[in-house]
Amino acid sequence: MKQKLDEYKHIVENNLDKIFSNQNIPHNLKEAMNYSLSAGGKRLRPVLCMVWGELFGLDKNSLLNFATSLELIHTYSLVHDDLPAMDNDDYRRGKPANHIQFGEATAILVGDGLLTEAFKLMLDNDLPADRIKRATAEVAASTGPRGMVGGQALDMSLQKQQEIQLNTLKQMHSLKTAELIKTSCLSGAILAGSQEEDLERVRIYGRCIGLAFQVADDILDVVGDKSNLGKPVGSDMKAGKTTYTSLIGLEESKKIGQDLIEQALDTLQPYTGEQAEFLKELSNYIVERIE
Amino acid sequence: MKQKLDEYKHIVENNLDKIFSNQNIPHNLKEAMNYSLSAGGKRLRPVLCMVWGELFGLDKNSLLNFATSLELIHTYSLVHDDLPAMDNDDYRRGKPANHIQFGEATAILVGDGLLTEAFKLMLDNDLPADRIKRATAEVAASTGPRGMVGGQALDMSLQKQQEIQLNTLKQMHSLKTAELIKTSCLSGAILAGSQEEDLERVRIYGRCIGLAFQVADDILDVVGDKSNLGKPVGSDMKAGKTTYTSLIGLEESKKIGQDLIEQALDTLQPYTGEQAEFLKELSNYIVERIE
Repeated sequence: MKQKLDEYKHIVENNLDKIFSNQNIPHNLKEAMNYSLSAGGKRLRPVLCMVWGELFGLDKNSLLNFATSLELIHTYSLVHDDLPAMDNDDYRRGKPANHIQFGEATAILVGDGLLTEAFKLMLDNDLPADRIKRATAEVAASTGPRGMVGGQALDMSLQKQQEIQLNTLKQMHSLKTAELIKTSCLSGAILAGSQEEDLERVRIYGRCIGLAFQVADDILDVVGDKSNLGKPVGSDMKAGKTTYTSLIGLEESKKIGQDLIEQALDTLQPYTGEQAEFLKELSNYIVERIE
Repeated sequence: MKQKLDEYKHIVENNLDKIFSNQNIPHNLKEAMNYSLSAGGKRLRPVLCMVWGELFGLDKNSLLNFATSLELIHTYSLVHDDLPAMDNDDYRRGKPANHIQFGEATAILVGDGLLTEAFKLMLDNDLPADRIKRATAEVAASTGPRGMVGGQALDMSLQKQQEIQLNTLKQMHSLKTAELIKTSCLSGAILAGSQEEDLERVRIYGRCIGLAFQVADDILDVVGDKSNLGKPVGSDMKAGKTTYTSLIGLEESKKIGQDLIEQALDTLQPYTGEQAEFLKELSNYIVERIE
């Protein structure tokens, strides 16, 4: 599974290089965009899009641009979240954050530029236009004020509150993290022309592993996994953030993570072959990290 | 012409109210988005989109959502441009800027939310999917790092320079202002299924009036037009900004503006009827303001 993950990752990173070379973008802005795009990461969102597309019969190259756009959106959200007015993080993946390296104005424009460029990329492929229209609309809905941006707004307002309910925490993570992961899976299936009943399964799979990833992050902040997480152990605790573990404890959090992964695995039952196997192993990998 | 402009404006503003009522957006974020969207303005970009669409045979209601999305994009760009790290403007259209009223974090998210929601709106209509795909791609290209965002990046870097050439100033305004105005015209024509030779005329019309608007703004900053401009006379001069008038003087700037409008009027020659008449009068109105 990890080998296949690396293969996809290289394909995405090659495409990132291709997209941002020889293009008519002001030099300083291009450099700052590339800085954050090339900072690494698992490239999970494009991989999920490509694997689900392949599972339903598409060649992965035909949805490479669409898949890559999801990494641009993820990166823009990290650059803006790190800004002083937001989470005020000076480091990201072991490197100075974009606004530390290039200044705040450039970091704001890097985010704006990546988000806009992402939509350009989504529309830049030869798949049927009605599928592209639907998949792109899904991305816009799940990353806008009713999705990821709304989740970040909720996160900011929760940081000022004393007591947070588990349901509120779930809703925030659902919007801030799970929505984009869900849509990464779903867009691959939509672009492949899948049936509605398949799309409903993909939707559940994506939502479950999206939430499970966040639960796992909270657990790893307590039990430690510095190399994978990219931030020091205990940083959420130090920042006084409400997490699954601070709210319901380590064991109960692990149980929630395991339940989510079981649900995700259930949705994969009708499917066989290399891609289905990969998606199962990816789910199990999340549980293994927290066990 | 002004009456018709007001009619279109009302249609757009009613649609804005409809879009942002009863929607699942966190309360504070929705309030802050509405604050900037309802701050007024001519709604020029949606109007241009609807009028060009009508000129080529579409009913204006069929492209209302697409047209409205252009106002969301324009508004997002103003909210981000006003931020302390960018132009650091405390006022916009006579009201406190978004970040003054709601704080910097919310203002960043308002911009991100409006931009993302704009793409959702562009895709939310029943026109043929291939036209929507092309028109949306045009908007993404003209507002991203090779368009409006690139223009703002260029503007930020020019503010640090002592001497600026006229061509550099033109390029900056072309990216920062004219690209979106061009695409507002062009998208209406694309959605109406226009031929390539028509699209080329629309492109020139949009680019010329987009640049002419900027030249007019620079001139009005010197000769005064406080009610229309919404900012105090001489504010660019006070800020030490390089403008057309500071670079080549008032008379030469007027000449450039008039030449641009003549080019725009030339492109309208093949067209007749109510919409063509409106577009002519709109062009003439720009020249009249600066004469």
